Amino acid sequence: MPLPEPFAAAPPLPPALIERFAGIVGQRYAVTDPDDQAPYLKDWRELYVARTPLVLRPGSTDEVSAILKLANETGTRLVPQGGGTGLVGGHLPYEDGGEIIVSLNRMKAIRAVDPAGNTLIVEAGVTLQEAQDAAAAVNRLFPLNIGSKGSCTIGGNLATNAGGTQAVAYGLARDLVLGLEVVLADGRIWHGLRTLKKDNTGYDLKHLFVGAEGTLGIITAAALKLSPAPRAIEAAWVGVASPTAALELLTRAQERAGPAVSGFELMPRNLFEFVLKHMPGTRDPLAAPAPWYCLVELSSAAAAGLRDTLEDVLAAGYEDGLVEDAAIAESVDQRNSFWRWREGMSEMQKPEGGSIKHDVSVPVASAPAFIAEATAACEKLIPGCRVVPFGHLGDGNIHFNISQPVGADKAAFLGQWEAVNKLVHGIVAQFGGSISAEHGIGRMKRYLLPGVKDPVELELMRSLKALLDPNGILNPGKVL
Amino acid sequence: MPLPEPFAAAPPLPPALIERFAGIVGQRYAVTDPDDQAPYLKDWRELYVARTPLVLRPGSTDEVSAILKLANETGTRLVPQGGGTGLVGGHLPYEDGGEIIVSLNRMKAIRAVDPAGNTLIVEAGVTLQEAQDAAAAVNRLFPLNIGSKGSCTIGGNLATNAGGTQAVAYGLARDLVLGLEVVLADGRIWHGLRTLKKDNTGYDLKHLFVGAEGTLGIITAAALKLSPAPRAIEAAWVGVASPTAALELLTRAQERAGPAVSGFELMPRNLFEFVLKHMPGTRDPLAAPAPWYCLVELSSAAAAGLRDTLEDVLAAGYEDGLVEDAAIAESVDQRNSFWRWREGMSEMQKPEGGSIKHDVSVPVASAPAFIAEATAACEKLIPGCRVVPFGHLGDGNIHFNISQPVGADKAAFLGQWEAVNKLVHGIVAQFGGSISAEHGIGRMKRYLLPGVKDPVELELMRSLKALLDPNGILNPGKVL
Repeated sequence: MPLPEPFAAAPPLPPALIERFAGIVGQRYAVTDPDDQAPYLKDWRELYVARTPLVLRPGSTDEVSAILKLANETGTRLVPQGGGTGLVGGHLPYEDGGEIIVSLNRMKAIRAVDPAGNTLIVEAGVTLQEAQDAAAAVNRLFPLNIGSKGSCTIGGNLATNAGGTQAVAYGLARDLVLGLEVVLADGRIWHGLRTLKKDNTGYDLKHLFVGAEGTLGIITAAALKLSPAPRAIEAAWVGVASPTAALELLTRAQERAGPAVSGFELMPRNLFEFVLKHMPGTRDPLAAPAPWYCLVELSSAAAAGLRDTLEDVLAAGYEDGLVEDAAIAESVDQRNSFWRWREGMSEMQKPEGGSIKHDVSVPVASAPAFIAEATAACEKLIPGCRVVPFGHLGDGNIHFNISQPVGADKAAFLGQWEAVNKLVHGIVAQFGGSISAEHGIGRMKRYLLPGVKDPVELELMRSLKALLDPNGILNPGKVL
Repeated sequence: MPLPEPFAAAPPLPPALIERFAGIVGQRYAVTDPDDQAPYLKDWRELYVARTPLVLRPGSTDEVSAILKLANETGTRLVPQGGGTGLVGGHLPYEDGGEIIVSLNRMKAIRAVDPAGNTLIVEAGVTLQEAQDAAAAVNRLFPLNIGSKGSCTIGGNLATNAGGTQAVAYGLARDLVLGLEVVLADGRIWHGLRTLKKDNTGYDLKHLFVGAEGTLGIITAAALKLSPAPRAIEAAWVGVASPTAALELLTRAQERAGPAVSGFELMPRNLFEFVLKHMPGTRDPLAAPAPWYCLVELSSAAAAGLRDTLEDVLAAGYEDGLVEDAAIAESVDQRNSFWRWREGMSEMQKPEGGSIKHDVSVPVASAPAFIAEATAACEKLIPGCRVVPFGHLGDGNIHFNISQPVGADKAAFLGQWEAVNKLVHGIVAQFGGSISAEHGIGRMKRYLLPGVKDPVELELMRSLKALLDPNGILNPGKVL
């Protein structure tokens, strides 16, 4: 595995230039005080030490445009930032202190809500929770759902093509956007906020900017697709013998419930034991332990019949020997408990010591073989380690995590991070998988990209970057 | 409205160069005989007179690559072609005879079918019908559905981002593709045939090529998303007072049935009368004429409950005064009749004389206002004309057609084509709509593009074209 590529540090910015940038947004929104800057310089896992001379908080698309125009003319590097919840350092400047942060957190207008057309137009700084609330207020669903929804913003969700638990039914952030307003590197504004379901008038440019992690332009507003609010939701906690049985159950669920399958999560027993041990009030809903569990959720706009459909799915699973036992949530509280267990599975690894993590995906049908092979390889490399792979089986997206052996030295275990990464990513590659299913490349996985991408694809990506950001001012040293 | 831009004719190709191209695929697959070429030079409405010295029929991606490499080196213009069913001339060379057709119709391999992963990998020349059949053989649905499915190919469907009647539930061709194999203008092959549901490792390049009408690269194979096969389908023919009532019924249908709404088509009474008059065996299923009709179809992977859901939708529509009368299909035959009437609505305009057509879209909620305003404007411009707007209300996609006044001179009526276009497209623009919802730009609407696109968007499109096809060999004079 190549070592991280060195990244050329940016020179410090002249004070007069900093003043010019500050003048665009006004002193009140040009943050230089270290205490005030602190919230903009963090990542959740505290992996990076970020520095910046200036956090700019523009209040309008025109201000963003003016910032980019000046940056492009002066070769000043910018790091666009949404809610700051990214996990790969894509939202943070490098340590050298020569990059300005452009926070979109003041652009919070909800520009339009159209329940009849099922569309919502919001500015980039609107949080995911606020977008969901705006949809709910008109009896609609904005179905993107990730743990950080209270903090993360629509601009960041789109720039990173966020996924989450409901992607199996509704797709990723990319699939939920109809149009964008984007400021290009030279300050030009692309007014692409269309709310059309069908429009075949040329190249579809919005997909260039979605998932580009702020390296090709800054998204300032988006036209989003809404769905009808579900009128019925059912969930079951299902014990199964293996990932293979879980996959077959997924197939039966989709055959019987189609797009009503709004969640299909897989978890091993050992990880559920972490939850039982460390999360207060957790009680196994099944009479006997099962080797693996599925959390199956169905949602429907139709009021009636969903419980029957879930029972039909589970009955088919029993009949075919796939389901060992299952508990159907009898209340909203119980359903929320199932999801709380699932969502706590990252946190509940902490009391068990060091954890080495991977956010990978493989073709859905290959998930069981991938889990088996990668688990065996890790257990061979680090005898006694506890492999706890879990996640969105319906998307082939496995959070392949490894907790340290009981009683092992945490630092020594974490010292094997690179070796374990290499091993797991190698197996991912054999299955034609992805080393970043949801979280993006950012800074963390940038050095891995040349090893996993088709060379022509990488050349195309570099050409696009050179075309759209010829002076390299937009989030440099991220992705590419 | 600007006149069509002149397009610089290509010089005739030297015979030696033609020989070199022919040598790549072999004489058998290098078509020069005019009779053999004829099927490659047609469009359905016979609007264009196309000429070519050579139709190449490569049998592999490597042959396509060799063709493009040679074309790029020699500046030879190529026109990629699928099933030849395009409606805007995008698949045809210009009249000058200096362009070579590259037909993908020999690349017909179904490379992989994966029912557990819900994916299908096919080569570009596989017809839509063949792709649907390959999915059905493993109890899956490939949901793209358009009238020309027996002839059109997956490569063409993706290059033009085909839509069709089921887009309301399943999206357009763009939404049904996971990965692509594309030959670039210089012959490089991008191996992007991933079957991953989630992959956030850099820019999503496939969307550059989908909908680009062969101007940025040639798609040679695609990894497609499958859905579970529906186990229940219900349809109703519903009389309503107006497009506004239809829109409100659509809202109620989606609120009560969600993604089970697999079709929602709108048609006026006068157009249904064309069908009643000219399509043998058609009988009005409702007791009294209604001013407008909706064809509402629901599909579900769940076997039970769908009829109840449809009745719930219609009951809500009656209750709120939206539905005048409705007939639920009591058999597959009757459901097929409803669709036959709907699908015959283009053909059934022919016996009524000349017809001026538009394939436009507006935001769904604006469709009634658009129809009202555009109808009044056309009736004012051409007194006695019969405006017959119909189509995919669920996508805001209206085939806004105008039949000539009874007894009028056909040629004189058709002579007003440009004036009517200008009028209708102007109203589309007021509603933030699209002048090509489904059919693309091709050659026919190329000259209209600068008038309707955001200037920055057009600049970006031109930059992308220059980046990916610097010698302008790929389908020149189309789109841009």
